[in-house]
Amino acid sequence: MAAMFDVCGVGNAIVDVLAQSDDSFLAKHRLNKGTMTLIDEKRAHELYGAMPPGIEVSGGSAANTVVGVASLGGRAAYIGKVRGDQLGEVFNHDLRAAGVEYRTRPSAAGASTARCLIFVTADAQRTMQTFLGVSSELSPDDIDPEAIGAAEITYLEGYLFDPPKAKEAFVKAAEVAHAAGRKVALTLSDPFCVGRHRADFLDLVQGHIDILFANEAEIAALYETGDFDAAARQVRGHCDIAALTRSEKGAVIVTKTKVDAIPAEPVAKVVDTTGAGDLFAAGFLYGITHGKDLPGAARIGAICASEIISHYGARPETPLKDLVRQKFLD
Amino acid sequence: MAAMFDVCGVGNAIVDVLAQSDDSFLAKHRLNKGTMTLIDEKRAHELYGAMPPGIEVSGGSAANTVVGVASLGGRAAYIGKVRGDQLGEVFNHDLRAAGVEYRTRPSAAGASTARCLIFVTADAQRTMQTFLGVSSELSPDDIDPEAIGAAEITYLEGYLFDPPKAKEAFVKAAEVAHAAGRKVALTLSDPFCVGRHRADFLDLVQGHIDILFANEAEIAALYETGDFDAAARQVRGHCDIAALTRSEKGAVIVTKTKVDAIPAEPVAKVVDTTGAGDLFAAGFLYGITHGKDLPGAARIGAICASEIISHYGARPETPLKDLVRQKFLD
Repeated sequence: MAAMFDVCGVGNAIVDVLAQSDDSFLAKHRLNKGTMTLIDEKRAHELYGAMPPGIEVSGGSAANTVVGVASLGGRAAYIGKVRGDQLGEVFNHDLRAAGVEYRTRPSAAGASTARCLIFVTADAQRTMQTFLGVSSELSPDDIDPEAIGAAEITYLEGYLFDPPKAKEAFVKAAEVAHAAGRKVALTLSDPFCVGRHRADFLDLVQGHIDILFANEAEIAALYETGDFDAAARQVRGHCDIAALTRSEKGAVIVTKTKVDAIPAEPVAKVVDTTGAGDLFAAGFLYGITHGKDLPGAARIGAICASEIISHYGARPETPLKDLVRQKFLD
Repeated sequence: MAAMFDVCGVGNAIVDVLAQSDDSFLAKHRLNKGTMTLIDEKRAHELYGAMPPGIEVSGGSAANTVVGVASLGGRAAYIGKVRGDQLGEVFNHDLRAAGVEYRTRPSAAGASTARCLIFVTADAQRTMQTFLGVSSELSPDDIDPEAIGAAEITYLEGYLFDPPKAKEAFVKAAEVAHAAGRKVALTLSDPFCVGRHRADFLDLVQGHIDILFANEAEIAALYETGDFDAAARQVRGHCDIAALTRSEKGAVIVTKTKVDAIPAEPVAKVVDTTGAGDLFAAGFLYGITHGKDLPGAARIGAICASEIISHYGARPETPLKDLVRQKFLD
């Protein structure tokens, strides 16, 4: 059956709160630069109290990716849970306004919509403190078999491994996709998230995943090795395609038969790296669902990543379709 | 008595929702470019549904001004009403985190926190559609005589003339300030707001206002003349200081005895003019409460305005104190 969507993303539905910060702030509040930490509502309240003035932008890793796919002109759907509160309304609006089919109804009860406090330092690194709120109540019942079955690729974020019910939803989504003859992609999301659930991730990668996204720290955490080439060799036996991102060193695409290295797209000024991996995935998934070969898809990923790191927030400020067309004409 | 605050702002407490838009969108939704229109909750919901993906940033005219004063190193307080909801929490946080003493408790009942949908076009103009929500319930009881009496200048936004109770609060604030031997400043806010309440504004300017801020369209609306010089002559008889802003043509400061013209500060790229007037007022008020003469104060205002129009949103992204110091050393 022809797919109705190129990509259906499943993830934690989150509104980002971004503020400029400095290293002494991170040190004072014991924040681990460049990583994502889960916090409870009390800590979220405390940290927000100490945070400089911020801006609110819709986020969530897989949500950023499907917005990227839509901005490229692709057809995208999303599954993830918000509450029917003001931030939930913001998340909902921004997703639909970006052209993504949002399949999950806002929850009428439970915790509030998830928030991620993001401290952006002058080196453009982002340090994320996430209060998952109602997003962690995503359960197997929320996995809409129709949307998953209608998507060429179901894209799962590793962050879903943290809430137990979400992990079950995750496995169900992969099974539904494969039963419908579709592909399943996964991003490892964060090295510490991988560390918390390493055995489960390895099982999943070997058993359920066709396309794996990871950055250097994440793939190192998965295979417990600091040797990038050794990790690349190992992942080769575990899934069909691994797209390994290396920041300014570009990306490496590993398949059973081939390794392609793609340079990073040059950026005048890196402002905020929030969403770089999410948007690389958007471009790559758009490419492979639109007849590009792997290096071509990775080039689109690199272009999308370059847009997102040139401003605050993880949602594109320029139509990515126009940007990619212009870059390919360059 | 020595003042504890340089400026106490009184205004509509609003969270801005900014999105890029184009002229055809404005035309389709019958939006009048460059102006502010009040809308009800139903229309806000409809328009938000049609709006492209946005970012949320705290706003409110007088609130932007007091944040600017604080960012310059001044001492600022604020009176204005939010609800105890998520957007109210955002507004509250951003004001306090900026170093402003926020004197009004969030309302436990009533409408939700005010939102202003701002459509920013490629020419950097902003078109604002405001749902006042609970901010319009500001009443004379909310006017904290202690804060007003302790502020060298009480700064009132003309937008407060729209909600009837807020207008009473407005007059009370002016009376309390003068009874304490303090100064009262007013910004006319919007030409259509002036048009709606012209007679009241004229009474107020003649009877209660020491320092008046207006742009060309607003002062034209107040005196019903398209001749800027004629309007400037008229305002001279009505208040001690009139600071008239003329966008890229700079500002004109009119007193009983003198007229000073101050050029605009050059800007590499004008992105979004939201808050230009608010931040000019911040710099000017900071200057005159810190021993600057009128042209010097206006120069600080021009520098602050140049910062705010170089990015999205009406809150400074750079400490204005550092920016002004650097510009004065140039």
